[in-house]
Amino acid sequence: MTKPDTPQHQHLSQYKNKIRDPFWSHYIDLVRTIVVPYQWEALNDRIQGAEPSRAIRNFRIAAGEEEGEHYGMVFQDSDVAKWIEAASYLLAAQSDPELERTVDTVIATIARAQQADGYLNTYFTLKEPRMRWTNLAECHELYCAGHMIESGIAYYQATGKRNLLDVVIRLADHIGTVFGTEVGQLPGYDGHQEIELALFKLYQTTGEAKYLNLSRYFLEQRGKGPHYFVQEWEKRGRTVHFAELDIVHRHAYSQSHLPVRAQSTAEGHAVRLVYMCTAMADVAAETGDVSLKEACERLWNNVISKRMYITGSIGSSAKEEAFTGDYDLPGDTAYAETCASIGLIFWAKRMLQMNPNSKYADVLERALYNTVISGMSLDGQRFFYVNPLEADPELHKVNPDYAHVRTRRQGWFGCACCPPNIARLIASLDQYVYTTDEAHSTLYVQLYIGGEGHFTFGGNNITLSMESSYTSNGQSTIRINPDSAEGVGFTMALRIPGWCASPELWINGEQTFIDDSIIECGYIKLSRIWKKGDELKLCFPMEVLRMKGHDQIKDTFGKVAIQRGPFMYCLEETDNGEGLYRIQLPASTSFQVHSGEDMPLGVPDLTAAARRIVSHDHWEGQLYRSDAKQEVQAIQIRFVPYFTWANREEGEMYVWIREWNEDVQH
Amino acid sequence: MTKPDTPQHQHLSQYKNKIRDPFWSHYIDLVRTIVVPYQWEALNDRIQGAEPSRAIRNFRIAAGEEEGEHYGMVFQDSDVAKWIEAASYLLAAQSDPELERTVDTVIATIARAQQADGYLNTYFTLKEPRMRWTNLAECHELYCAGHMIESGIAYYQATGKRNLLDVVIRLADHIGTVFGTEVGQLPGYDGHQEIELALFKLYQTTGEAKYLNLSRYFLEQRGKGPHYFVQEWEKRGRTVHFAELDIVHRHAYSQSHLPVRAQSTAEGHAVRLVYMCTAMADVAAETGDVSLKEACERLWNNVISKRMYITGSIGSSAKEEAFTGDYDLPGDTAYAETCASIGLIFWAKRMLQMNPNSKYADVLERALYNTVISGMSLDGQRFFYVNPLEADPELHKVNPDYAHVRTRRQGWFGCACCPPNIARLIASLDQYVYTTDEAHSTLYVQLYIGGEGHFTFGGNNITLSMESSYTSNGQSTIRINPDSAEGVGFTMALRIPGWCASPELWINGEQTFIDDSIIECGYIKLSRIWKKGDELKLCFPMEVLRMKGHDQIKDTFGKVAIQRGPFMYCLEETDNGEGLYRIQLPASTSFQVHSGEDMPLGVPDLTAAARRIVSHDHWEGQLYRSDAKQEVQAIQIRFVPYFTWANREEGEMYVWIREWNEDVQH
Repeated sequence: MTKPDTPQHQHLSQYKNKIRDPFWSHYIDLVRTIVVPYQWEALNDRIQGAEPSRAIRNFRIAAGEEEGEHYGMVFQDSDVAKWIEAASYLLAAQSDPELERTVDTVIATIARAQQADGYLNTYFTLKEPRMRWTNLAECHELYCAGHMIESGIAYYQATGKRNLLDVVIRLADHIGTVFGTEVGQLPGYDGHQEIELALFKLYQTTGEAKYLNLSRYFLEQRGKGPHYFVQEWEKRGRTVHFAELDIVHRHAYSQSHLPVRAQSTAEGHAVRLVYMCTAMADVAAETGDVSLKEACERLWNNVISKRMYITGSIGSSAKEEAFTGDYDLPGDTAYAETCASIGLIFWAKRMLQMNPNSKYADVLERALYNTVISGMSLDGQRFFYVNPLEADPELHKVNPDYAHVRTRRQGWFGCACCPPNIARLIASLDQYVYTTDEAHSTLYVQLYIGGEGHFTFGGNNITLSMESSYTSNGQSTIRINPDSAEGVGFTMALRIPGWCASPELWINGEQTFIDDSIIECGYIKLSRIWKKGDELKLCFPMEVLRMKGHDQIKDTFGKVAIQRGPFMYCLEETDNGEGLYRIQLPASTSFQVHSGEDMPLGVPDLTAAARRIVSHDHWEGQLYRSDAKQEVQAIQIRFVPYFTWANREEGEMYVWIREWNEDVQH
Repeated sequence: MTKPDTPQHQHLSQYKNKIRDPFWSHYIDLVRTIVVPYQWEALNDRIQGAEPSRAIRNFRIAAGEEEGEHYGMVFQDSDVAKWIEAASYLLAAQSDPELERTVDTVIATIARAQQADGYLNTYFTLKEPRMRWTNLAECHELYCAGHMIESGIAYYQATGKRNLLDVVIRLADHIGTVFGTEVGQLPGYDGHQEIELALFKLYQTTGEAKYLNLSRYFLEQRGKGPHYFVQEWEKRGRTVHFAELDIVHRHAYSQSHLPVRAQSTAEGHAVRLVYMCTAMADVAAETGDVSLKEACERLWNNVISKRMYITGSIGSSAKEEAFTGDYDLPGDTAYAETCASIGLIFWAKRMLQMNPNSKYADVLERALYNTVISGMSLDGQRFFYVNPLEADPELHKVNPDYAHVRTRRQGWFGCACCPPNIARLIASLDQYVYTTDEAHSTLYVQLYIGGEGHFTFGGNNITLSMESSYTSNGQSTIRINPDSAEGVGFTMALRIPGWCASPELWINGEQTFIDDSIIECGYIKLSRIWKKGDELKLCFPMEVLRMKGHDQIKDTFGKVAIQRGPFMYCLEETDNGEGLYRIQLPASTSFQVHSGEDMPLGVPDLTAAARRIVSHDHWEGQLYRSDAKQEVQAIQIRFVPYFTWANREEGEMYVWIREWNEDVQH
């Protein structure tokens, strides 16, 4: 193990923030009152009619508390870990003795399920105890360990209790003895990246450099030849766990086709890539590792400028749940997994911390306000795994190429990664609102989510309270209250959302002209001695934007997608009738923005004049003809925010609408 | 077994026809000089660099001529059968002693591979001799038997030799003892339909009603409950042969979800459906079975009016190579298998014989002139399995949803069904040009393919010679020469192609006005005493047609496909540059038809003024933006016949082009 090249100051956001927001408090309440309790029932197999999880039972059996056999996927343990993590964030925000008791109980079971040497994994402990660490490519041992480490840290940070933290430290130390390049160690790495970012968090939490080094080891070992996944496969007698995937040989699937520093395009399984890049950015920022940072930037640029849907989702094909190629972004067959957008948010946050540039926060916001919350129903009870940009339930019924797409959200899944991932992200959303750069005494406002934040700069405590109606009209008011009566000098950096052309700012009631001299990397930067009661009022006027896709995206060519503020909009059949493909939006159409009172969470809906192309011919059993005539109906169409789709009657949904452009005529 | 309900006159086309045609003679020569010899080498594993077939070797091993194990798919035998069938049709048209010797040699081996009880299948004989007839759902025993029966008949009809016919009669008789509803018989039927149409041919050839009855038994047993495929699966211990397909339980895949008479939509594997319907139409026509005839018509109407591509191909999804639902006809992910269009031609021919209506011949022609010959390269050396209507090689490389699509034809396939199927269809094309209705003394001209046909009506021999330049300009001249000096009275029925609005006819040099009084079911009917030297000159003027898809086909909405005569046209990248999706065809554009001299087989290419939409903006790494501007370039585009695509430089190909319709503006 080497030491970090250039140990730098830890500039992780070290602040407390309590969200109180007309939009997001709803989601956090849902997670608290519906999602986390429901998922606890699901983990305990108490949901009637749902496929049992058995995840808790597996731990009880491994702990010797119950008789039985392991049940479920090889990564079933991670569902419990993610649930503990989400519960921990809820506990950090608000005391809940009953929830805390429940968590303590399950942690006690987990601790008993841990083996004497620190090993912790119910699948291998119960099912294949002699096969530990023999199939890293497919069997998710390090992935499950990573999630358990994240949950141990979250619970420690929420409650100060070390019960799960000590378990995962033993687990991490055990992993540290097993893996490495020294004699007697396995020179391997995980098939599904996750351990790397978890070990980095453990390094931050404990201050122990060995975890940073182990995280970096896993990153650097990846993709080295001879290929570890092939070697271990030979060694174990060429058995495979997921016969349908060929993970052993399809190395790009797990981003192990090249050393991470040599990768420049986003390949393979989308969740794996973004989890890996999250850790790469963590390690690069911490160690000042230039080539690792450059790899992060190359991969980021490839995703964001060539491989991301306009809803902030990624993964263009259901086969391997993977990236495909540049500008290949089909809206109907998209995989666009909720978890992948959550991972993109993790990564974006690290990129922001490494290099404060609003472009990262723009992507974070796009993924959060569109794909992530599309992933959960408005009542918090049902979930999308796949978030298409075009859906047609009648078509999905008959064509198996859409077998992965749903137009009704589902309950707890057989492979239940997305629901607990949404829960842990939303429950920890307070950590995404601000970033701080202590070296430059700068406090960045990345998201305009209301609440009360507590910061420390140079020993001075500052309370920042934000009131925000950002989601309905783009307005936020920030009040700055340093403890010190003399005030505190630091820089407030206010992100200008990428969608806003003309931001407005009032400092203590006085409108301030915003020109390039105060804008840096997409932020309005205000450096001054901030005094109690200083107030910033921001307005980001929300024009309805007609977004176009890059002209090399075949699937969006000639189409337009409607955006207002951070939200993408869509047409639903329930508002606009069946056959949404018949609708064209004239380029000259103006939009009526309706007050969002009747709309979910106050986000306005939009109406516009449009055209529906209809055929008055009787086709008389013909499928093709040369004399078909079409006519145009003038219609009004209604757009609703994408995140609200599939919460009413089941039907078609389109984000990209064909544009009728009179100007592009001759 | 029951006897036929209403034995009717056998109105199978009983004529000899020697094709001599500027277009089709080329293909027949290719089959004779390239395809059949190449496939013989392939069947004997003598093609360097190609996956070995081992199909002949399997027979030699089963015959005791060689040591070894069975190799290849469970339906490998059928490749040999289809080859013999194609070779037989060539021998029928033209003597070739060397080819005949080769066929005799392989037939001798096949005869030795036949078991004492008549059973004939190398897979089960060599690999699982105790498992005969235990997995009809998946293991293609009856399918292979069917192809062998067809080849035995074809060789007998070509040469008069009974060597293979006697083998297949023993095989059919063996099958007749094994299957049926009597005690001790298996009440099963084939997983892949084929035996039914083969047994019907055997009935026609031998006159033995038992084969008609056995064919009808297999049709009628299909889809009865309790489900046979489930029963045999239980009986054999729930083993499966093709784990990825679940043929045992997905009954619609093999059209066994309902009794055949109760089926009204085309479901499941496309080739299976059309082979089944071919036999249904055979049996219905022969027995006068009304409900079976009605089922044929219902299924035909469903396919033709809702589930067929404009190129005459079928099968909208690669998953299960199957039909999906009404109006679901994606051009890029289409399966559109060459074999399925060949089967559609088999079926269309039977529908024509049952009910002479030009609509069946129109479909036959559409499939033949587009998908079938698209399936083979112009040099006869390479083949498409899948015939998409939109292709983009760069996209196919990166997106696994297109894994089944090729933009370069391949050599001999691992699953080699299509190449020998093309060979046997083209080698027997003489049988598709005419149909006869002896009961009504009518001779139908279904296809305008030049050659010399010999017919008998009421004991009178008639020679019909056709000279045709149909494929380039729609003209044909038919000379009628009865042997008898007094002439012969019968009806000539001349099909008016569905694409032709204004046919022209000259009888003995005199133009005849074509009105409804002489048109019946799409044919010009001319009844008279035909005398030596009578001459019909037909002209079907070929307008360039802008075809539109039914307005419920989402994938063709707002697009146009170009047809001239029987040929669909397409754009290729090599003529029109990359990014074919940027091209729009104005509704008012006129087409220039270029003499086909430089074009393959003399079929003209077309040019037209069109528009290319381009973006002059610099995207500067952005993927989406609200201020993108597009401009229109006036361009000339070139359409080439669809069947010629992918014979030059590899690149994009589009059949359906977006239309720019100035008229549909307000």
